[in-house]
Amino acid sequence: MAAQPTPADRFTFGLWTIGWEARDPFGDATRAPIDPVESVHKLAELGAYGVTFHDNDLIPFEADEDARANHIARFKKALEETGLVVPMATTNLFTHPVFKDGAFTSNDRSVRRYALRKTMRQVDLAAELGASTFVCWGGREGSETNAAKDVHAALSRYAEAIDTLVQYSLDQGYDLKFAIEPKPNEPRGDILLPTVGHALGFISMLQHADRVGLNPEVGHEQMSNLNFVDAISQALWQGKLFHIDLNGQHGPKFDQDLVFGHGDLINAFFLVDLLEHGPLGGGPTYDGPRHFDYKPFRNEDLTGVWNSAAANMRTYLLLKERAQAFRADPEVQAALSEHGVTGLAQPTLNEGESIADLAADRSAFEDFDVAAAAAKGSGAVRLDQLAIEHILNAR
Amino acid sequence: MAAQPTPADRFTFGLWTIGWEARDPFGDATRAPIDPVESVHKLAELGAYGVTFHDNDLIPFEADEDARANHIARFKKALEETGLVVPMATTNLFTHPVFKDGAFTSNDRSVRRYALRKTMRQVDLAAELGASTFVCWGGREGSETNAAKDVHAALSRYAEAIDTLVQYSLDQGYDLKFAIEPKPNEPRGDILLPTVGHALGFISMLQHADRVGLNPEVGHEQMSNLNFVDAISQALWQGKLFHIDLNGQHGPKFDQDLVFGHGDLINAFFLVDLLEHGPLGGGPTYDGPRHFDYKPFRNEDLTGVWNSAAANMRTYLLLKERAQAFRADPEVQAALSEHGVTGLAQPTLNEGESIADLAADRSAFEDFDVAAAAAKGSGAVRLDQLAIEHILNAR
Amino acid sequence: MAAQPTPADRFTFGLWTIGWEARDPFGDATRAPIDPVESVHKLAELGAYGVTFHDNDLIPFEADEDARANHIARFKKALEETGLVVPMATTNLFTHPVFKDGAFTSNDRSVRRYALRKTMRQVDLAAELGASTFVCWGGREGSETNAAKDVHAALSRYAEAIDTLVQYSLDQGYDLKFAIEPKPNEPRGDILLPTVGHALGFISMLQHADRVGLNPEVGHEQMSNLNFVDAISQALWQGKLFHIDLNGQHGPKFDQDLVFGHGDLINAFFLVDLLEHGPLGGGPTYDGPRHFDYKPFRNEDLTGVWNSAAANMRTYLLLKERAQAFRADPEVQAALSEHGVTGLAQPTLNEGESIADLAADRSAFEDFDVAAAAAKGSGAVRLDQLAIEHILNAR
Amino acid sequence: MAAQPTPADRFTFGLWTIGWEARDPFGDATRAPIDPVESVHKLAELGAYGVTFHDNDLIPFEADEDARANHIARFKKALEETGLVVPMATTNLFTHPVFKDGAFTSNDRSVRRYALRKTMRQVDLAAELGASTFVCWGGREGSETNAAKDVHAALSRYAEAIDTLVQYSLDQGYDLKFAIEPKPNEPRGDILLPTVGHALGFISMLQHADRVGLNPEVGHEQMSNLNFVDAISQALWQGKLFHIDLNGQHGPKFDQDLVFGHGDLINAFFLVDLLEHGPLGGGPTYDGPRHFDYKPFRNEDLTGVWNSAAANMRTYLLLKERAQAFRADPEVQAALSEHGVTGLAQPTLNEGESIADLAADRSAFEDFDVAAAAAKGSGAVRLDQLAIEHILNAR
Repeated sequence: MAAQPTPADRFTFGLWTIGWEARDPFGDATRAPIDPVESVHKLAELGAYGVTFHDNDLIPFEADEDARANHIARFKKALEETGLVVPMATTNLFTHPVFKDGAFTSNDRSVRRYALRKTMRQVDLAAELGASTFVCWGGREGSETNAAKDVHAALSRYAEAIDTLVQYSLDQGYDLKFAIEPKPNEPRGDILLPTVGHALGFISMLQHADRVGLNPEVGHEQMSNLNFVDAISQALWQGKLFHIDLNGQHGPKFDQDLVFGHGDLINAFFLVDLLEHGPLGGGPTYDGPRHFDYKPFRNEDLTGVWNSAAANMRTYLLLKERAQAFRADPEVQAALSEHGVTGLAQPTLNEGESIADLAADRSAFEDFDVAAAAAKGSGAVRLDQLAIEHILNAR
Repeated sequence: MAAQPTPADRFTFGLWTIGWEARDPFGDATRAPIDPVESVHKLAELGAYGVTFHDNDLIPFEADEDARANHIARFKKALEETGLVVPMATTNLFTHPVFKDGAFTSNDRSVRRYALRKTMRQVDLAAELGASTFVCWGGREGSETNAAKDVHAALSRYAEAIDTLVQYSLDQGYDLKFAIEPKPNEPRGDILLPTVGHALGFISMLQHADRVGLNPEVGHEQMSNLNFVDAISQALWQGKLFHIDLNGQHGPKFDQDLVFGHGDLINAFFLVDLLEHGPLGGGPTYDGPRHFDYKPFRNEDLTGVWNSAAANMRTYLLLKERAQAFRADPEVQAALSEHGVTGLAQPTLNEGESIADLAADRSAFEDFDVAAAAAKGSGAVRLDQLAIEHILNAR
Repeated sequence: MAAQPTPADRFTFGLWTIGWEARDPFGDATRAPIDPVESVHKLAELGAYGVTFHDNDLIPFEADEDARANHIARFKKALEETGLVVPMATTNLFTHPVFKDGAFTSNDRSVRRYALRKTMRQVDLAAELGASTFVCWGGREGSETNAAKDVHAALSRYAEAIDTLVQYSLDQGYDLKFAIEPKPNEPRGDILLPTVGHALGFISMLQHADRVGLNPEVGHEQMSNLNFVDAISQALWQGKLFHIDLNGQHGPKFDQDLVFGHGDLINAFFLVDLLEHGPLGGGPTYDGPRHFDYKPFRNEDLTGVWNSAAANMRTYLLLKERAQAFRADPEVQAALSEHGVTGLAQPTLNEGESIADLAADRSAFEDFDVAAAAAKGSGAVRLDQLAIEHILNAR
Repeated sequence: MAAQPTPADRFTFGLWTIGWEARDPFGDATRAPIDPVESVHKLAELGAYGVTFHDNDLIPFEADEDARANHIARFKKALEETGLVVPMATTNLFTHPVFKDGAFTSNDRSVRRYALRKTMRQVDLAAELGASTFVCWGGREGSETNAAKDVHAALSRYAEAIDTLVQYSLDQGYDLKFAIEPKPNEPRGDILLPTVGHALGFISMLQHADRVGLNPEVGHEQMSNLNFVDAISQALWQGKLFHIDLNGQHGPKFDQDLVFGHGDLINAFFLVDLLEHGPLGGGPTYDGPRHFDYKPFRNEDLTGVWNSAAANMRTYLLLKERAQAFRADPEVQAALSEHGVTGLAQPTLNEGESIADLAADRSAFEDFDVAAAAAKGSGAVRLDQLAIEHILNAR
């Protein structure tokens, strides 16, 4: 019954999450805005480590320089008072109508230039606040019809924009990494870089590929009914898990932004296990903030807002306990070994074996006992059930 | 009423497509096997350019050396008689029970070695038959639970396998490119490299990344409800569209392998337009075979099989006519230009403009008329409707 | 090249469709409100037959009695000036925060009572304006978690509400039919009566089942990746197709409300064919208004809004032409007959045949030539290709 | 740590589940057939209550009368030896090629008659073995294209078939209920009666509607990404939950038939809670067998098969424990009451209140404090988190 979060757990929240006024496509706002200063204090009370924000979460789009400075000063003061940090910042390139056809990939070149400048300004603020990661979610980079968007050209513009921003950051002497956040659709019919995979492919084409990684979001990958744990495994494998957005989703439908764990609980368990302990056969863990990008239900009041914030952290910690027990269970370890799960880390070729050696190894092919190999059971359901019993805290 | 296919159209079919015996998860075969020799002759009659195959489409898994040689000889003779070519070949690493937990990423290392050897053998045959592309579909590389597969390690083994095969091919002096075929699921609960994007990310990690590209399949990307045309645009943008599998699908459900165009007709139109004419604002086209990877309905007899083969080609040719008219329509061209669709090919920074120049350009930000830019219409529905009226042949 | 809509085509539009200000979950409004009077005039110019509305499309939620009367008077005047009719009306039970947990099924009983009263008032206005159908879309009737909504009780409250409204309408002497609009999710995580089917089941439980039918929407059924034509076939079969919402959707994602035909074009073709000509083997057609419930893209300006309205009607009329040619094609008719498609209308038992007779008919079982029946081809791909060639206007 | 199943738990399994030879669309069988007699004995050992079957699970399609009698006799003997019962039986109308275009709705009338006769025969056997429920899964009743199936006529034939079978059963004096099993697709592109809802609508049209209910399957409803608990709530509300198929699924993809609970664990929890305890505000529970219709992974051997059978029962029992604790938790009960969840069972109109009374109640509308009602929080996330902590056994 532990599970009280502390800053050591490195839980962070976007200002826009608890601050969401709960306007949706069919309904007006149900909650008043929350002053970011209040959010910072409340998150600190709940045990969070940090807070993140889009420029316009803190500073209204239309604010002049004085207002801007004042918003920043008040925010900094709250950070100082609470000890909360800002490990990540990002730009809002989607709310204002000027971005209605995209920002970095708008068909209107002047909008593309404006988007770059708006982002450069927020890069400055991110650096000023000590952020180490700058997230880019291109929510409006996409289209509703292939008749009106040249995706090939759009990818070139997207790459131009990201490389320009990284270069700008380097020119200014900032130590920022950039993290692209994939999403398949909503608000656009189809968004560029729809999955973790498409973003990994894109990054490989960048001039500054080494400074650019991913900020994958649980629900975004699940909107395409893809296995998020598999996607994170690939991101880790490619050294590109720079940041992560934790939440919940019930498969292919609108973006739900549920509390973490309140969607696919089994997948959430394996995700926490992977982030905390690395791959089953050994390998990298994730050492960045555990960042929640969720929305309190529209039918909640302010009490519900803070309950939901606490629920994210508590569910994570409970799953962490379950995952620790899973890894520590001797029967689990024995089964992982017996069924070759951990053995997969061993290369297929022997050390020093050449391809010609393999080609000449009759035991590998001509004399291989196919029938015997085909008859072996995988042990998968046993392992699956062990995991589920650990989730249920039944062992 | 043209639309009679000829070899110049470069239509190709897998032996396994028209040859499918129509066994499905709930039903027995409804059709007898077709002799590959008969398939080659019939496809030639229908106007196809070539034929492709898995090793075991031609040579039964259990065949001995003599039987193997005989199958190959008969097949070569049919090719000679008809003039059909074999531009692509691939290995079956999914039907036999030995691959039930994967081939290159099986938890059983001896199976991994066996799979490599089986594939090397088919690489030899591909080269012997003059193929230029070798497709790798890892249908069994995946899992039903994250408890029983270390995806991080699996990706390492997958990369080891592909790099080994490319090196083998180079060692033998073959001029083969390798093309990975992504699929999200079925037959496994989750398959590694589930989308075009994940495969592009994977390829960027390979030692032999330059020899490895993609064989995307219409229905596979649509099983994740992703826009296939966008995926192909990215593959072209990354120079990785080595081959393509054309068919149809009705969104996220089992793999339907419908006749090309018989699923999402609008997406099929934009696909043909892209393959034939390149991006709207200019850029690369696809010059490889138009390969159909589909299944005749299980309730068809042999007449239906050949009707469906013809339907693939005829639908492609009709969509090609519609796309040509779309591109040639002056109203379309005017709208593409007016609404900035073709203009997206222009870089966002001016030629020679430095980032400092951009930062100093007040017209780009401080003096930018946001409201005016926000008010401009995109013209997207007009373009969409023009496309649809061309599909309907109503202009 | 005809396809100019006239009132005889009975096309209708919701005020909320062309009037959508284009606020979405991630963006502010991009268009100004349109005065309903202007909408009525413009729709009349474009060839529409009628207009439909929620109470709050015409009368702001907070309007007092005088303001209300004024809005109604101006609207009536516009109808008179243009000849447009109001065949359908509906209530907005989703925008205001008071409905955030549902209306007829809110956990707050006072909200349930309020929702009934608000709807009764709009029933009065619907009758006053001569509407024959009253649509009920329960967009907020649902939940995000099974922990917070008793769906069993909710269905009882839903039934109580619909029966109360029908009784109220009968008591007032109105000749209104009620039409329930199913939707699976958005804005709620799960909505009650998620599909055409669930609503048909629900209706069968009502006291006033005879006065209640359906208003199915293309995109809503397709959000569950279900075949909309099959759903409409069942609605017709049960005599419950009281009204219809035409639009487009690209499978399971957020509710796109595309222009009709701009989603799944083949399904749209078969839908128009069914509505206009009835089932392939004969049966009822649909004789109500062809009602468009779509949204102009958020990146369109006012020109784009009216272009999109026209596109809905034009696409419908073009598909109607294609469907007429499909039905009139002798090869189609021959194939439908040859392959038993039209023969399915014939009962399985002979006229006057008892079950005992069937049980005694050895030709039906003991002597039935299973193999011969199993060998017959379905002709399905031939018919499918004929349909697609008619869509493409290629015959 | 209880959770040892006994016959009192009323767990049943289909012979085809543990007996699945693991042939899939891309792979050959990986396991040998299991003698039904062995299955019966093994299931009894594991603590099952009963066993169910399709005719051809027990008796091969081609068996003559003697063979048939022998299979039945051996099966009966095993039942006697073990005490296992047969609460449900069903017919296989999908494996043999003769049903490739449907059974009761085949375009070939002779096939329709044959399907009726085959089913009547199995109805006899079901009655003979003491079954109380006869399941009808129309896996082949559907189509891949609307060009080749008249769904309107097909529904008439489907209704004719079900009514004929019920009448036959009544004529024979059997006390059988019939239960329709919905599924959206696979093996057909679209299947008739795709969801619980569509089947409920269909049943309302039957002559013998009172003898016909549902056999919903977890994964089938989840293949359309619908909330299964909501569907079961509606089935209970309509008095139509005659039987149930428990398994697991990961959203819209091929039919996975996972072990119960191994898909969406949270939904499985709420399902067990509903079946065992009824709706949150009170109402009917389910008193039939807990029937598992799942498939052991294709990569399991016989040990894995029986492990997976046990895993189904154990997971159910663990979730039952969690649900009992959830219902018994005073904080849960207080929250359900405080937030009106249990209050939804109260009618919206007062006892004896007429519609005119409601219309005259100013407190319901004119004087209703909309703002105050809009401000109240739903408590949903608190309840959701309580449920999840009970699943995790963390309270």
